[in-house]
Amino acid sequence: MPTYKAPVDDVLFLLNDVFHIERYGNVPGFAEASPETVAAILAEGAKFCEEVLLPLNRVGDREGCVRHDDGSVTTPKGFKEAYRAMSEGGWIGLSADPEFGGQGLPFTLAAIMNEFLTAANMAFAMYPGLSQGAYHALRVHGSDAQKKMYLPKIASGEWSGTMNLTEPQCGTDLGLIRTKATAQPDGSYKINGSKIFISSGEHDLTSNIVHLALARIEGAPEGTKGISMFVVPKFLPKDDGSLGSRNAVSCGSIEEKMGIHGNSTCVMNYDGATGWLVGEANRGLHAMFTMMNEARLGVGIQGLALSEVAYQNAAQYAKDRLQGRALSGAKFPAKAADPIIVHPDVRRVLLTIRAFNEAARALVIWTALQGDLANRSEDDKVRQAADDQMGLMTPVVKGVLTDCGFANTVLAQQVFGGHGYIAEHGMEQFVRDARIAMLYEGANGIQALDLVGRKLGKDGGRAAMAFFNDAASFVKAHADDEAMKPYVAPLDAALGHLQKASIWFMKNAMFKPDNAGAGSYDYMHLFGLVALGYMWAQIAKAALAKKSKGNGAGTRMDAKLLTGLFFMERMLPETGAHLARIQAGADGVMKMPAESF
Amino acid sequence: MPTYKAPVDDVLFLLNDVFHIERYGNVPGFAEASPETVAAILAEGAKFCEEVLLPLNRVGDREGCVRHDDGSVTTPKGFKEAYRAMSEGGWIGLSADPEFGGQGLPFTLAAIMNEFLTAANMAFAMYPGLSQGAYHALRVHGSDAQKKMYLPKIASGEWSGTMNLTEPQCGTDLGLIRTKATAQPDGSYKINGSKIFISSGEHDLTSNIVHLALARIEGAPEGTKGISMFVVPKFLPKDDGSLGSRNAVSCGSIEEKMGIHGNSTCVMNYDGATGWLVGEANRGLHAMFTMMNEARLGVGIQGLALSEVAYQNAAQYAKDRLQGRALSGAKFPAKAADPIIVHPDVRRVLLTIRAFNEAARALVIWTALQGDLANRSEDDKVRQAADDQMGLMTPVVKGVLTDCGFANTVLAQQVFGGHGYIAEHGMEQFVRDARIAMLYEGANGIQALDLVGRKLGKDGGRAAMAFFNDAASFVKAHADDEAMKPYVAPLDAALGHLQKASIWFMKNAMFKPDNAGAGSYDYMHLFGLVALGYMWAQIAKAALAKKSKGNGAGTRMDAKLLTGLFFMERMLPETGAHLARIQAGADGVMKMPAESF
Repeated sequence: MPTYKAPVDDVLFLLNDVFHIERYGNVPGFAEASPETVAAILAEGAKFCEEVLLPLNRVGDREGCVRHDDGSVTTPKGFKEAYRAMSEGGWIGLSADPEFGGQGLPFTLAAIMNEFLTAANMAFAMYPGLSQGAYHALRVHGSDAQKKMYLPKIASGEWSGTMNLTEPQCGTDLGLIRTKATAQPDGSYKINGSKIFISSGEHDLTSNIVHLALARIEGAPEGTKGISMFVVPKFLPKDDGSLGSRNAVSCGSIEEKMGIHGNSTCVMNYDGATGWLVGEANRGLHAMFTMMNEARLGVGIQGLALSEVAYQNAAQYAKDRLQGRALSGAKFPAKAADPIIVHPDVRRVLLTIRAFNEAARALVIWTALQGDLANRSEDDKVRQAADDQMGLMTPVVKGVLTDCGFANTVLAQQVFGGHGYIAEHGMEQFVRDARIAMLYEGANGIQALDLVGRKLGKDGGRAAMAFFNDAASFVKAHADDEAMKPYVAPLDAALGHLQKASIWFMKNAMFKPDNAGAGSYDYMHLFGLVALGYMWAQIAKAALAKKSKGNGAGTRMDAKLLTGLFFMERMLPETGAHLARIQAGADGVMKMPAESF
Repeated sequence: MPTYKAPVDDVLFLLNDVFHIERYGNVPGFAEASPETVAAILAEGAKFCEEVLLPLNRVGDREGCVRHDDGSVTTPKGFKEAYRAMSEGGWIGLSADPEFGGQGLPFTLAAIMNEFLTAANMAFAMYPGLSQGAYHALRVHGSDAQKKMYLPKIASGEWSGTMNLTEPQCGTDLGLIRTKATAQPDGSYKINGSKIFISSGEHDLTSNIVHLALARIEGAPEGTKGISMFVVPKFLPKDDGSLGSRNAVSCGSIEEKMGIHGNSTCVMNYDGATGWLVGEANRGLHAMFTMMNEARLGVGIQGLALSEVAYQNAAQYAKDRLQGRALSGAKFPAKAADPIIVHPDVRRVLLTIRAFNEAARALVIWTALQGDLANRSEDDKVRQAADDQMGLMTPVVKGVLTDCGFANTVLAQQVFGGHGYIAEHGMEQFVRDARIAMLYEGANGIQALDLVGRKLGKDGGRAAMAFFNDAASFVKAHADDEAMKPYVAPLDAALGHLQKASIWFMKNAMFKPDNAGAGSYDYMHLFGLVALGYMWAQIAKAALAKKSKGNGAGTRMDAKLLTGLFFMERMLPETGAHLARIQAGADGVMKMPAESF
């Protein structure tokens, strides 16, 4: 059975020593988030994840969700009690508005908790995760009456939420949506159609489920400009919020899938279900997009979370498993064999994962902080700059963290040899669960196109330029610091590759967009490496400072500095290969006739 | 449901146009393998795989194998009939000796058929695959009586075979084996112990199962020098080959695993089972090693096979799936959307897989040919040179083809978006099935150590030097050929990286073996890229020649040339990053104290 210990100390180091969140004390919600409060909250959250959710992870995978003949769905044993405990602990509304019963804490804290929750039990964590998404959409786009009706119950965990976008003929291309909405005299709509891949679509965890569904109002324009968003509750609420009659939206079947078996991924049938318009008619895609950054950041966190729990188990196994001898001679001659961590190649694998995890965690926290600043700061300039960075970094976090997170679960599984393939160790479940994050909420190829096609050139490249300048300033400020040189010199080189690639697109993709498409995936990973490298440089700086204070953190800081060096020496230089592939252009991929594939 | 068409034309091109196997007409078995015969055999084999095995692939995954209370095991529905058809078709003994009822055809043909069989149904193909392994071990090390008793029945498919090595406390490190063998007065042994991860360990496909098991004879030396090999049949055969009493070897349980559910991976309990020594006492590991090349090549083929079937399905989906529009404007404005193959990034993914597949198939065939020459040539020098190359290339084929094969199933799955995660499309099964090949028959880290620690320096580096010279001669011979330049120039650069890395090991690893260990994995992949690049250069040469003959193969040859260019431009240059990581040495991975992981 896998083990998990939430990396609370690492998070506190990032919040306090690297990002100095005390700087944001004047931003609403941050004053309440003093170092002591944050430490206490995270310690309690960690305990819940480690003791309640982790033991349910394998149960969830084995049992899965069961749909009964009446369309009801039972979640795996223990999920219901855990969900109740989570609601009662106030975790679901951690960053929700106090006005609607939330704790009002920074979104950053919720993002951190999402890592812990997901690492312990990804399938479970998706239930409250979807609720947070629905909360956010209704909060931004709902009417006052809708907010009053739904938000407090979602924030408290009494009701849950879902997002209903995908249909069999459309995933990426939502302009092809066929689900119909017909206006009723009372201002409501009748919704008819079928949605697929609906996470948490039907279950027994909450008394009501609030579906947010995209549909086309009869007579609406073709394509993406005719899509509207509707709120369609499973039970129609009475004015006092108590449950009324059952709505005509139901689970037609549960998808049989590779992993996350504990989450009910449903085909949802809308058979004249009653729904109410959320926001303006025909502006449904716009409404979805405004909440996409946080949703995609949440998926990126899933990649990190599974990479972290997979690392912890692989590292422990490498220290425990006795097999063979060190290349340089037996290290434990009294034992039957040496632990496999004596092998350079095993260490290489572990360091590869860890060098990603620590920087990815920093990047998640930094991006979530931008989200908080963008939503809460009272300074217009700060809000805009933060919104720029959040928008720019979202496809990078989603695409790179899920690609690398998945790859890392595979690496961690490899440390177990044949035992990694056997269900009981849990490593193969991490691989199967992590795989979905590369696919949903916009497959990673779409993230790459979003980055290159939309985010990079937006507002004259303002966001990208600000990021480049920020990183370059850091490099410059530490260029003469001997201790920092091993970190900033490689970062400088990688940043140069990223800037060259950006310029190459400006020159070559304007009139030939296929040149952007052919290099988009490499660019996303090139950007990700630079962003992670920049995080490592900042971590190194903080670690050196903490070490120099000599307050007993030396060993832990040394490990960070060595892991960061590994990243700089063996992982970051991959930016050169990405740049070369980008500069190869589109011809090599476009020349082949489609029928030759 | 996935589809599959065995790449017969591609194989014939490789055999006839690239490797000119008519050259080997004087090697036993090759005279019978005329181009017409080979084409007919492969066409028939392809039909069997496509029509009989493919439809059972998903059934096997869903049903898995069932162990009953009496220890018997039932395979998935349809497997038994398919196995009978396969036996009757003579496929199991395709390259077995005519003396023992085999077809006597080249091993190369069996290797090719193994790709087809595995692509159609990997879990099924493992049953005859294990039989071929057991056949080979008994043929090389068995006594005349053992050969006479077992080989004809294994070659015909009447009986099947298994290999029993792994125990809970030992996989890589077989010196830790605990299974005991006690000599009996009649010359047999009583075997006691427990083996795990035994593929095809118990099933209902054949009337008898011939286990080859490693055990320690009482009083034998400690460690690897005290391991012996035994033949332990499920039913003790009478002198006339008919079945006698049931032996005390039985399936204790079936492992619950990530994939290959249709193959029964068993815990095998030896409770005083009767076995007979195969070969010399205490030379069991040696006996295993002599058959390891072919077994590991077989696992490498699994990587290729799943990459191929995954490619075929992803390419078809990309041509069928309508979603969004081309970046350069709608290509099929009359349709609701363009097929996703218009996107450069989708093509990049498909070409990445295909550029691997075609070269990997060439490398498999070339390596298998070395195996044939090593075993069958009457010329000592040819035998030795071929044996050198087979030994050198085995860890490369096993490690690189399974790593890339798995990665390619993941890429192919990605083309399907969210649909790739759903069982019905079959893409996620390819991923789960392909994963095991990186782990068993020596985890890939072990392959890398085998290459760097044993194969590279063996006989003064004779095998590696011969390979380098061979590739360098090819480069030199075509350096002035304009049409070949785009292939040989990148190959030349990559070969330079490989040679530099080899020299770096010679200088830096002799007295510090951790330097070899830390770079071993990169070296394996660097070697693999060069080997695949060399294959592409040879394919390009043959394609140009065939195209110039103008015999209607133009489109197919053009596709090969474009795919090869993609490899040269976007995949081969990765050798530079591998070299840099190798030259970084061991310090970066060894400095971290074990307890800091």
